[in-house]
Amino acid sequence: MLNAAEKALRKLVREQQGLNPSQVTELDGVPSSTEFARFVAGNRPVVMRGAGRQLQVPALDRWTDDYLVETLAERELEISATPHGNADAIVDGAFVEPANAKMPLSTLLDRLYEEQDVVEATTPVFYLQSQNGNLAGEYAPLQDDVLPDGPAFAREVFGQAPDVANIWVGGRRSKTSLHKDPYENLYLVVRGSKTFTLFPPSEAFCMHEQPFPHATYVFDPSTSSFSIRRTDPPLSLPWIPIDLDSPSLSAHPRFALARPLRVTLAPGDMLYLPALWFHRVEQDVGLGPPRAAAEAGAARGGREGVKAAIAVNWWFDMDYGAPVWGLHALVRRLTMALDGQEDDEPDSGDEDEL
Amino acid sequence: MLNAAEKALRKLVREQQGLNPSQVTELDGVPSSTEFARFVAGNRPVVMRGAGRQLQVPALDRWTDDYLVETLAERELEISATPHGNADAIVDGAFVEPANAKMPLSTLLDRLYEEQDVVEATTPVFYLQSQNGNLAGEYAPLQDDVLPDGPAFAREVFGQAPDVANIWVGGRRSKTSLHKDPYENLYLVVRGSKTFTLFPPSEAFCMHEQPFPHATYVFDPSTSSFSIRRTDPPLSLPWIPIDLDSPSLSAHPRFALARPLRVTLAPGDMLYLPALWFHRVEQDVGLGPPRAAAEAGAARGGREGVKAAIAVNWWFDMDYGAPVWGLHALVRRLTMALDGQEDDEPDSGDEDEL
Repeated sequence: MLNAAEKALRKLVREQQGLNPSQVTELDGVPSSTEFARFVAGNRPVVMRGAGRQLQVPALDRWTDDYLVETLAERELEISATPHGNADAIVDGAFVEPANAKMPLSTLLDRLYEEQDVVEATTPVFYLQSQNGNLAGEYAPLQDDVLPDGPAFAREVFGQAPDVANIWVGGRRSKTSLHKDPYENLYLVVRGSKTFTLFPPSEAFCMHEQPFPHATYVFDPSTSSFSIRRTDPPLSLPWIPIDLDSPSLSAHPRFALARPLRVTLAPGDMLYLPALWFHRVEQDVGLGPPRAAAEAGAARGGREGVKAAIAVNWWFDMDYGAPVWGLHALVRRLTMALDGQEDDEPDSGDEDEL
Repeated sequence: MLNAAEKALRKLVREQQGLNPSQVTELDGVPSSTEFARFVAGNRPVVMRGAGRQLQVPALDRWTDDYLVETLAERELEISATPHGNADAIVDGAFVEPANAKMPLSTLLDRLYEEQDVVEATTPVFYLQSQNGNLAGEYAPLQDDVLPDGPAFAREVFGQAPDVANIWVGGRRSKTSLHKDPYENLYLVVRGSKTFTLFPPSEAFCMHEQPFPHATYVFDPSTSSFSIRRTDPPLSLPWIPIDLDSPSLSAHPRFALARPLRVTLAPGDMLYLPALWFHRVEQDVGLGPPRAAAEAGAARGGREGVKAAIAVNWWFDMDYGAPVWGLHALVRRLTMALDGQEDDEPDSGDEDEL
């Protein structure tokens, strides 16, 4: 039966690959609600080139260094700090969360400016990625620059406003390791670029997700160095160990079956990232809107603006009753069983009725 | 692992039941496209009371006995004949297709009239159920009475016209045994009523689908009796053996986990039956539109119209790349493995690469 389950899971991966496009569908601008609804029903990603311009998202013109610094003033922001830009990733056999630093935006921009043209920067990597609905919190003054309720076509199709909206600000060294979110995601790049590598929920079988001890980076400002502290009492959580830049097929043989979809977003491009899709995000940096350079020259010590990657995203609640949740949960449970892992969810008492 | 797979499948059934309504959602009239799109994305049935009236489907007023008989004239129609109304059902350990009789509609209506008030009718059961897109074929003269392209909200959401449209005409003794179709289905009752018993694709585990030898009813007009002829050379096909009126939990224990949803449609009511939902259909009969009685009195030998069940349905192509197809295929393959059945699909050659 093990073999039968494994065969069924591999057949699922191949069949879904055969039935779905091998590249992310590209639209010129935003879709109609009914058009978008078909991507949601199919749990299929889609890129909407230039959607941000078409939706007249003010941030695309407003978010110069000066505007952002003035608007956020001196408020102390929560910024992730890591040695290599590896926030929430597997390091030395543990799942390591970033250290948190507090600084005003001007300081973050200064840090990004210092590293931006250094080929092998070794300074700490700072990344504004609080992803806790920060656009309604710390960054509320920026909310009206980015459709606080998300794009209308998404609101109509999901039948509600987004659960949370986030802003992300970082440099080229920051990346997000492969993971999934139980949210429907709309992602808009404002400055720089983001490259997504995507895998569908049916490929959970290929991801070798497994439990790791939980830990946190600790930053020592005196030596400007990091150490890793295991959480105590020990906490374990499941994560994907695969490094997409150098996957080990001997350690993770099922990853050979996975089929990555890659897409790069430029400023104004929007991605629909369907619920439960596995994704890794890399970024490159760019200057702000044309006005940035000039203004910055004046206001920010003659430098011609900071090269940063800035994006916003809207998370909409997913439909847990829809088939994709059941499919993902079933694949995940079977894969854990194949790997001899305990199901991490409690059994309902009557599981043994039959 | 067998136990693990079985546990995972049972957990899926229970979890999906917990996450989805225990009754079919009821709408008053037709939904907007975006509203309907959420039912499609969720693969959730919905009944739209009075939708046919709201959409002004002419059949609801036009389809009197006389109109139907005159419009179809004397053309010989293909009518299913069975001893007990059990077309396409398991009989004596075989999957038995109905016998086919040729008769004009007037003859079918005469048969339905003769049986309509007989409590224990023993005459053959005739059912117009050719379901081969008959509204574009044999019944083309009736097409314009029933939205040949289906309801606009469905066309918009599915992004295409229906693949086929069918008309169904029968009496109270005809039923359809539990099965599923790989189509998105919109179903409208014109006369009489239809009662659907529904199970979601995640409950394929509970259906004990298994292969049966293929056979056909043969009708002997001289004795007006039926015999069953096994197909030769033997042909086997998978079917669900469960009789919903008297399920045998000893023979089919997993059916105890299934949760039936029942809904009855009156004339003008429309049901969205999502792709791959298991369904059994029973029907009751009623007179035609008000005009029927009077006209019939004149035209049809003084009788006050025939009590019949008349419905139409539109089948739209399903999205095979969407999660529901993968979910159903995975559950089905695992269940077949648990039951020691051979997967009936060919393995792709590289299934053993890993």
